[in-house]
Amino acid sequence: MRYTPSGAFGSCRYKLASVDRDRKEYERLIDVFKAHEIGYFFYNGGGDSQDTANKVADFSRSIGYPITCIGIPKTVDNDLPITDCSPGFGSVAKYVAVSVREAGLDVASMAESSTRVFVLEVMGRNAGWIAAAGALAKGARDDPPHIILFPEVSFDKQRFLDQVDKTVKRVGFCVVVASEGAHYADGTFVADAGTKDAFGHTQMGGVAPTLVDMIRNGPGHKCHWSVADYLQRAARHIASATDVEQAYAVGRAAVELAAAGKNAVMPVILRGKGKRYSWHLGDAPLSKVANVEKKMPRSFITKDGFGITAKAHDYLAPLIQGEDYPPYKNGVPSYVKLKNQLVKKKLPAWQE
Amino acid sequence: MRYTPSGAFGSCRYKLASVDRDRKEYERLIDVFKAHEIGYFFYNGGGDSQDTANKVADFSRSIGYPITCIGIPKTVDNDLPITDCSPGFGSVAKYVAVSVREAGLDVASMAESSTRVFVLEVMGRNAGWIAAAGALAKGARDDPPHIILFPEVSFDKQRFLDQVDKTVKRVGFCVVVASEGAHYADGTFVADAGTKDAFGHTQMGGVAPTLVDMIRNGPGHKCHWSVADYLQRAARHIASATDVEQAYAVGRAAVELAAAGKNAVMPVILRGKGKRYSWHLGDAPLSKVANVEKKMPRSFITKDGFGITAKAHDYLAPLIQGEDYPPYKNGVPSYVKLKNQLVKKKLPAWQE
Repeated sequence: MRYTPSGAFGSCRYKLASVDRDRKEYERLIDVFKAHEIGYFFYNGGGDSQDTANKVADFSRSIGYPITCIGIPKTVDNDLPITDCSPGFGSVAKYVAVSVREAGLDVASMAESSTRVFVLEVMGRNAGWIAAAGALAKGARDDPPHIILFPEVSFDKQRFLDQVDKTVKRVGFCVVVASEGAHYADGTFVADAGTKDAFGHTQMGGVAPTLVDMIRNGPGHKCHWSVADYLQRAARHIASATDVEQAYAVGRAAVELAAAGKNAVMPVILRGKGKRYSWHLGDAPLSKVANVEKKMPRSFITKDGFGITAKAHDYLAPLIQGEDYPPYKNGVPSYVKLKNQLVKKKLPAWQE
Repeated sequence: MRYTPSGAFGSCRYKLASVDRDRKEYERLIDVFKAHEIGYFFYNGGGDSQDTANKVADFSRSIGYPITCIGIPKTVDNDLPITDCSPGFGSVAKYVAVSVREAGLDVASMAESSTRVFVLEVMGRNAGWIAAAGALAKGARDDPPHIILFPEVSFDKQRFLDQVDKTVKRVGFCVVVASEGAHYADGTFVADAGTKDAFGHTQMGGVAPTLVDMIRNGPGHKCHWSVADYLQRAARHIASATDVEQAYAVGRAAVELAAAGKNAVMPVILRGKGKRYSWHLGDAPLSKVANVEKKMPRSFITKDGFGITAKAHDYLAPLIQGEDYPPYKNGVPSYVKLKNQLVKKKLPAWQE
């Protein structure tokens, strides 16, 4: 299972409303816990999941039901606060860095008589961490990526097109990494698919083709584009060894925290001082984690808004170190599939 | 360099017209060969490149200039004739199989409360070999991918939507691998970007979002989509060891054929008889290779047109065997960059 990506236990996207708005759902949850004698609730995920864990902890405390709620950090978005990074991010970062380096070589070899611009769309609704990781592909100054579009920097169409054109003229080609959440100053997403997910967030997809249309109708260079979508976050085959180690460490720490009687906390990764990268574990109250979104600090983004600073590089680089290859069988990774047999339900079906 | 993807020497996309139409270009080429005392012309690529090599061989023979022209098979499209497979294809096939397996696990884990359909768009303008390779992700019958769209099978919107819906109802989710070249019976591409490349081919991109729009407006399942584009064909990090070995073997064979005095030929990979996969090298005249496109035989595609047969699986599976990881430095593959210093030009600049 250590080598298997995604939620091998299954996963859910269900956002609990506040207790005031939907008390019945919380009560049902506690009823299920009681019926099955569940005393520990581990909840693995990003900001919304930590918020859910916090709400469950609050409610169970308020009614005096002794459930232990521990959040476990895990989000490719890397936007959880307090923890230095979020497990899952290092591996996506590595995937994006490797992909940019590879596709960049492809474009470089073709640019003289064919494609001159390549746009890779990556995840990151509100935070540009994943897009920033593309910069780890860079060896020398003019290496790809040449332009990164962050959700933290308002998109300015003319400035973007000028930068693409300038880059093609100077370097011969231009590689762009665009966050799915890239948006104009007024908040409009560069490509708004118009649909919403279970959490009410606008569902993204389509920044890359939108940018390519702008370039074709603007400077007119030949473009190619890619949307990595689930490929990036499920890419266990190119996982960061550092990330895998940290993911396991926070899982273990969660159990240890629960066993030590802690409640409503989340284990966090803390970076050691000093030039050489080191990390150790701590914990943070869920109330301080819930609903805080850690975006890229301005000091991590270059003045022109199209790249990352040395400070950002120092932060990101250690997170993609090391390869942790899965075992292969018949040419593909031999990932496991759990049977996930549910226990017999003890309560009658839930009526909304 | 063995670990570096793409054309490390640079690459070109330049289609020679016929000698009748543009004799001056051919004459210039021979003039350049003469000026620099070039006696060997190795041309590495797919169908169009082999056609170019053949034209150069024909022309030099017709004017009595003794240049040795050897084509070297290399195309991710796997559509060269005579050779059992084309170097480059096995690695893309592995990338697609691995990606489908990984993204498939992601969708499977989310399907109950979120995304139910995932569409991956892969390369393959006229031949469905790359899309077919997605099927190597399959372990059991209901594993992803559930639907493959080949250019060899006319696209029927209603049949496709029915199949998606049926699959979601039976399996809980549906993973689709779509060839960029998927088209309707009248030849219209499912997504026609409307632009053309240097060879006059319509430039693709956008099948996945088009299919997703159909599903959203049809059965209405929540979808995600990905376009692999250059990521797939530059993915040296997940190269097939079998493919790497064959790529080197045909390169070596090309030099050996030239040294042995052969002309206007291309080394080919020939599959041994017997259940256990084996291969050896042969050669074929460029005249028999040029302008022949090897598509998926009908016997490789299931009756319903949405999957591959056991025969296709037996053909494809050996080509993705073995991993051939590149060395890493700072968390990313340490690919080389050649200086590619050009020799001093001996002729005056070319005037069209």
